[in-house]
Amino acid sequence: MSAEQYTERVPEPTLRRLPWYLSVCRLLKSKGEQFVSSTRLSKETNIVASQIAKDLSCVNVIGRTRVGYEIDNLLQVLEDFLGFTRMHKAFLFGTGRLGTALLNDSGLKQFGLEVVAAFDVNHRIVGHTVSGIPVYHISELEKQMRRHHAKIGVLTVPIDSAQEVADKMVVWGIKAIWNFTPLRIRVPSNIVVQNTSLYAHLSLMFNRLDGLQGEDEDK
Amino acid sequence: MSAEQYTERVPEPTLRRLPWYLSVCRLLKSKGEQFVSSTRLSKETNIVASQIAKDLSCVNVIGRTRVGYEIDNLLQVLEDFLGFTRMHKAFLFGTGRLGTALLNDSGLKQFGLEVVAAFDVNHRIVGHTVSGIPVYHISELEKQMRRHHAKIGVLTVPIDSAQEVADKMVVWGIKAIWNFTPLRIRVPSNIVVQNTSLYAHLSLMFNRLDGLQGEDEDK
Repeated sequence: MSAEQYTERVPEPTLRRLPWYLSVCRLLKSKGEQFVSSTRLSKETNIVASQIAKDLSCVNVIGRTRVGYEIDNLLQVLEDFLGFTRMHKAFLFGTGRLGTALLNDSGLKQFGLEVVAAFDVNHRIVGHTVSGIPVYHISELEKQMRRHHAKIGVLTVPIDSAQEVADKMVVWGIKAIWNFTPLRIRVPSNIVVQNTSLYAHLSLMFNRLDGLQGEDEDK
Repeated sequence: MSAEQYTERVPEPTLRRLPWYLSVCRLLKSKGEQFVSSTRLSKETNIVASQIAKDLSCVNVIGRTRVGYEIDNLLQVLEDFLGFTRMHKAFLFGTGRLGTALLNDSGLKQFGLEVVAAFDVNHRIVGHTVSGIPVYHISELEKQMRRHHAKIGVLTVPIDSAQEVADKMVVWGIKAIWNFTPLRIRVPSNIVVQNTSLYAHLSLMFNRLDGLQGEDEDK
């Protein structure tokens, strides 16, 4: 069964929990363990065991009585299902601080994201490489797309060019945009957008922390 | 009215949308504009105008008939409400690739997060500085906490030490953990955890992209 066929059946909350189970499996495997029970998974993730069993049955993994789940099998299924075992070609747009940090992050490749080219408009960096990845002028997008057929675009430009660059991505065939800018980009409904704004997360954390301190003061 | 007093009234979905409005205001201000209507905000964010008016009334901002919102005022209220105008002291744990990238990111300081010290166990980096921020051995946490009273801990260690380091943070007084590891850390309920796992976001994007391709093939 291919990942495409699973997709419709797996609800988003389950999708969001699966990486937690994967991390626990990796951790336990590194400690030399072979099996993990849903009780153990529950203890490690704070998710109730029955929910875990339900989530894992969505990816066709059923635990065995007493021994639980075989860690190697669970690792393989989860990594495959989450898309980490297939290489997805990507272009990165904007080689500022965050863009450069992501290009330097060899971890992304281990999780299935291979950035094959980067784009910028700054003539001091265009024509050079970052971590071995060539940086082209944005005007070369069409040409590089014909060569690489990348489906994913990583958006790390300043907000004042975010929409313009997103438009270019869509025009030349990018199907999924990983948006690190704090701007909500507008794209056609058949384009996948994954927003990862560090600043939005930061503000959520500040807000909860302030709320907490307010509560403490009330005591 | 202090930020603490707002907190209870603002629902999380609103909290998640406020940074979008802030980004649009910044963008429009950089273009020299002074006012923004909710229609314009709606066009730029793809959020219906009535929802925007409702969200902004949660932070006590009311638009004026015809002219809309004054951008400078909206910027000030949103930045203040989102916590970006107050400096929050933080410690960073784990100076690997991602930790170093975050220490190099001067953008965090503009958004109210000031990392005052970093911790690691690697003797090649302990005793040095990264972007001017001193790196201490984790055993010096208690001492540094007495000095800085940081409330926020940024967790960028490998998963096999994530829980152990989170425990130490809680013991010595950290109240909010910004967790960049893909591990679900377990902490007491009065500790704020903000999860920002790049790999979980990546898998959500892959999954939606695969689903999309499945749909295309069906056509």
